[in-house]
Amino acid sequence: MMERSQKGLAGAGEWHTLQQVLPDFKEKSVLDLGCGYGWHCMYAAENGASKVIGVDQSSKMLEVAKSKSYEYAPIQYVQSSIEDLQLKPKSFDVVLSSLALHYVPSFNDVAKKVYDALKNNGQFIFSVEHPTFTAEGSQEWLYNDKGMIEHFPVDRYFEEGRRESNFLGEKIVKYHKTLTTYLNGLLENGWVLNRVIEPSPPSSMLLNEQMYNELRRPMMLIVAATKQ
Amino acid sequence: MMERSQKGLAGAGEWHTLQQVLPDFKEKSVLDLGCGYGWHCMYAAENGASKVIGVDQSSKMLEVAKSKSYEYAPIQYVQSSIEDLQLKPKSFDVVLSSLALHYVPSFNDVAKKVYDALKNNGQFIFSVEHPTFTAEGSQEWLYNDKGMIEHFPVDRYFEEGRRESNFLGEKIVKYHKTLTTYLNGLLENGWVLNRVIEPSPPSSMLLNEQMYNELRRPMMLIVAATKQ
Repeated sequence: MMERSQKGLAGAGEWHTLQQVLPDFKEKSVLDLGCGYGWHCMYAAENGASKVIGVDQSSKMLEVAKSKSYEYAPIQYVQSSIEDLQLKPKSFDVVLSSLALHYVPSFNDVAKKVYDALKNNGQFIFSVEHPTFTAEGSQEWLYNDKGMIEHFPVDRYFEEGRRESNFLGEKIVKYHKTLTTYLNGLLENGWVLNRVIEPSPPSSMLLNEQMYNELRRPMMLIVAATKQ
Repeated sequence: MMERSQKGLAGAGEWHTLQQVLPDFKEKSVLDLGCGYGWHCMYAAENGASKVIGVDQSSKMLEVAKSKSYEYAPIQYVQSSIEDLQLKPKSFDVVLSSLALHYVPSFNDVAKKVYDALKNNGQFIFSVEHPTFTAEGSQEWLYNDKGMIEHFPVDRYFEEGRRESNFLGEKIVKYHKTLTTYLNGLLENGWVLNRVIEPSPPSSMLLNEQMYNELRRPMMLIVAATKQ
């Protein structure tokens, strides 16, 4: 079973880094905010979690997640936006969120919700698109006349809020936050920071030109924090 | 006397932020790495520090610092590079460093040195040029044909090390490090992070166009950490 969730995760450049900061899941109650296809839920279940709640607002994604997870008894999926989710106080040991919180307008609101839902010494581990990556908004490289990448643009850094970008022809709305909002927001609200990591592609992926270019800009940020 | 050091500090856009994360200096022994003209040393002395050591490798700067500080009995100035400095273990309560550590090749070496020199629960507060600002190397805005700023370039982010830029016609050598190197380097080596702040210009300075543009990119990073 281990292989099943890993296949979905291994394609993601940041998985090898995220995996290193995940806690021991044995007998833990786990919440995954923005669970998508449920890969991280399955990973937690495979590693001994006693209860796993995956939350996503996409019914289509949850359908896929459910079809993949039917063998994993501890997992339940709940359809909800992260903003509207209601949680019982002190009911989780671990809250995960992989590349979802940059779609949410207020990080502080989420962090407060997670804080309340975690037991004491509970852990919050999340990845988001890096503030340097979300600031300008287009999320596109600057190219020269010959079609070569020149650099990545940064602009409007301290102007937090809505950004629109295109992904495969679809308009995507994300919310830029500064690094200060993520990290100092946690520090000022009772969290202890355990790890702050900007994942870079593993060397095994560097033959892929697209992955190689990801050494030129920070695209993601991984944060592990403990409620205290 | 308060006014004297403040005048030098008030011109710096980040001072109002740095000041907020400084500890109570009363009866504290303080080390300032890269003290320059000694403004922060004087500030610590004015606020009750019992011993202040300012270290800089520039004899010219130290001359100025000494001439400004002659009334401040607790301050001593030492000419040394940060790398070559030898410190007695557990001899300081507070170590400061303002915009100096991006000139030093290895942050980890400095952090280890500071860790050893601090007493238990001692504090390390530093500002550096922001990794997003140091990555590409030129430290210059990209302008369009009309001479307007388009954006700020990021490149070579995960390629740490030497960068050369120009400042008033002089070649300046700095050393780019990732945010991960600064923050996770501390977290993995026994530090507790207290604050991580990207200062933006105070509103009183935003009428100045150059300062206003500093809302478009993160230029500095302020970190406060405790040895534990």
